[in-house]
Amino acid sequence: MTPEPAPAWQTTAWLNTPRPMELAQLRGKVVLLHAFQMLCPGCVAHGIPQAQRVAKLFEDAPLAVVGLHTVFEHHAAMGAESLRAFLHEYRVPFPVGIDAPGPAGDPIPRTMRAYAMQGTPTTILIDAQGRRRRQMFGVHDDLLLGSEIGTLLAEMEQQRLEATGAAPAAGHCIDGRCEVGAGAATRNPLP
Amino acid sequence: MTPEPAPAWQTTAWLNTPRPMELAQLRGKVVLLHAFQMLCPGCVAHGIPQAQRVAKLFEDAPLAVVGLHTVFEHHAAMGAESLRAFLHEYRVPFPVGIDAPGPAGDPIPRTMRAYAMQGTPTTILIDAQGRRRRQMFGVHDDLLLGSEIGTLLAEMEQQRLEATGAAPAAGHCIDGRCEVGAGAATRNPLP
Amino acid sequence: MTPEPAPAWQTTAWLNTPRPMELAQLRGKVVLLHAFQMLCPGCVAHGIPQAQRVAKLFEDAPLAVVGLHTVFEHHAAMGAESLRAFLHEYRVPFPVGIDAPGPAGDPIPRTMRAYAMQGTPTTILIDAQGRRRRQMFGVHDDLLLGSEIGTLLAEMEQQRLEATGAAPAAGHCIDGRCEVGAGAATRNPLP
Amino acid sequence: MTPEPAPAWQTTAWLNTPRPMELAQLRGKVVLLHAFQMLCPGCVAHGIPQAQRVAKLFEDAPLAVVGLHTVFEHHAAMGAESLRAFLHEYRVPFPVGIDAPGPAGDPIPRTMRAYAMQGTPTTILIDAQGRRRRQMFGVHDDLLLGSEIGTLLAEMEQQRLEATGAAPAAGHCIDGRCEVGAGAATRNPLP
Repeated sequence: MTPEPAPAWQTTAWLNTPRPMELAQLRGKVVLLHAFQMLCPGCVAHGIPQAQRVAKLFEDAPLAVVGLHTVFEHHAAMGAESLRAFLHEYRVPFPVGIDAPGPAGDPIPRTMRAYAMQGTPTTILIDAQGRRRRQMFGVHDDLLLGSEIGTLLAEMEQQRLEATGAAPAAGHCIDGRCEVGAGAATRNPLP
Repeated sequence: MTPEPAPAWQTTAWLNTPRPMELAQLRGKVVLLHAFQMLCPGCVAHGIPQAQRVAKLFEDAPLAVVGLHTVFEHHAAMGAESLRAFLHEYRVPFPVGIDAPGPAGDPIPRTMRAYAMQGTPTTILIDAQGRRRRQMFGVHDDLLLGSEIGTLLAEMEQQRLEATGAAPAAGHCIDGRCEVGAGAATRNPLP
Repeated sequence: MTPEPAPAWQTTAWLNTPRPMELAQLRGKVVLLHAFQMLCPGCVAHGIPQAQRVAKLFEDAPLAVVGLHTVFEHHAAMGAESLRAFLHEYRVPFPVGIDAPGPAGDPIPRTMRAYAMQGTPTTILIDAQGRRRRQMFGVHDDLLLGSEIGTLLAEMEQQRLEATGAAPAAGHCIDGRCEVGAGAATRNPLP
Repeated sequence: MTPEPAPAWQTTAWLNTPRPMELAQLRGKVVLLHAFQMLCPGCVAHGIPQAQRVAKLFEDAPLAVVGLHTVFEHHAAMGAESLRAFLHEYRVPFPVGIDAPGPAGDPIPRTMRAYAMQGTPTTILIDAQGRRRRQMFGVHDDLLLGSEIGTLLAEMEQQRLEATGAAPAAGHCIDGRCEVGAGAATRNPLP
């Protein structure tokens, strides 16, 4: 089963970014897409803090954290003005797109529908080639999410080496540290 | 800076395993070595539960979690009998070695000294080739630890592919799920 | 320093109650007034869950938990419609009044001003005689809040005994249990 | 049902105190007796930290926190030497008695038996007259424990007033603050 390209994002506005974002722009980076609603308790207590931790821990790595406000209930209560205040108060630093409303009669917004999300919070990992690699509904473990991010980052580095034939370079930088990678040794195992 | 082979373990006894363990036996697996003292509050509150979470989450992956009881203070209070009761009460499932006492006059046990650990808890990651890749003193983040485990597991899979020339196989199993890997696609990027 | 009567509440609407509430109606009960804003992170993470725990733990005791939505910033983002959705999503069970807007030019609503609150969350304890006994800004400890509630409930029971000359009756019911009080023994100490 | 006098403590040694303690010495104070085992996970994670919070929060109040090491399993693993190291490492500041072993063949120590404790952790509240007022097995809520402490402290103050006919004095000091009580007003309600 080969991973499929992640659907494009359909949004009406963006906050925390000077211009709208498109998934295609992020080719070459691992993307964590966090879909939430500002009045969803599980998002506020777990999902958003986890996305914030990822954004901070991997700020020097080729990884982008992007939020998506996928309102599918209480639409009047979660307009753009309320979302803007929410992002300010909760110190959410990453770009957040507002998912485009569904066609008449559909309370589910368009990107949420395209990804067949089951609800909020939903965390999606997209690899450096734009393919959807993981989609998780609900609360999930930092260890698990971390290991999947580590896997995608290691894959990306491996591809870079293969594509360039270059000497192995620095491993990824995380948590404010950049370390020499084990690429050389990895490819030339100890006898 | 090439990673160096991890020092051998010097122990006097093992619990939770029918026979003593040696690091060399674990070649081909990623190893998380958790050094602790049973009366170290940070170990009990954070380190050991984290090692338990790793053991459970990655139980189907080529990863071994091993404990090391590195007593460097209150030696009389943390003998083998007390440790045995501790492991039972805290439901620690993985093998635990008792670090060999240091030479006369040295309160630091031998493996702890060989690894130059700063205290407890200390978490050490050793790759599938037996090389020490990370050593962390104190409490650290699940996301960070997870990403480093994911990186080492991905490296190992990549090496396996290169060594065998085999078709890419299943990605690693984690959290009770085994998923088809992206190896093929990884090596044959989308145009 | 004698406790002073708590200021009356000035509100424009009430949610979670069929009719508006007034402090004077609650004479004879201990009142926990929890002032919050729906987009205040400390309120959502700490203050409101604590008020919910109090409401549940003391549901059989003569104690009323009342919320007050004291919006002093982002007014447009926290209107009645948004608050209604918030209370629904967070399963807030107790009555919540919307604090009346201040006079022109004052962003601080009227009850918040009358109580001289410093911000949100603020937790206020009012005794059975309608007197303000404690006002706490920010996060505070369950043990501390619990002991102050216990003190006010015990005072109330003591007054009841003095007023009626009645035989000591059941102690207060908490946590779903009603226990025989120690009133008799209290007033007739063991020799 | 009138509260009964709490059984006397039967111990073999005391730590964290220059001389052995007896319950009778503590008449005039509310006593929180925390029974634990040093290798009981629930005690270490919940019971002992809660007793420590009570000791700190009420350090200026007429309340004594006392520990009791009630070993009923793994006796060899939890001797006095191990306990001493445990109390040091976990920074337990209050006196801890070692419960006296039961008669031959009984693994349950004597005080544990006399109080009919079901296991550890067990938290017991004894009022200023030496009567057992509450006994709770397992983990319990800070709000609940706090309210019961507040009730016992308020009772004690009330009795003091009745006994002396004195003018109402300072309420109890908690959390490092001593506040003027509401005694006067309580006894002379506002018109």
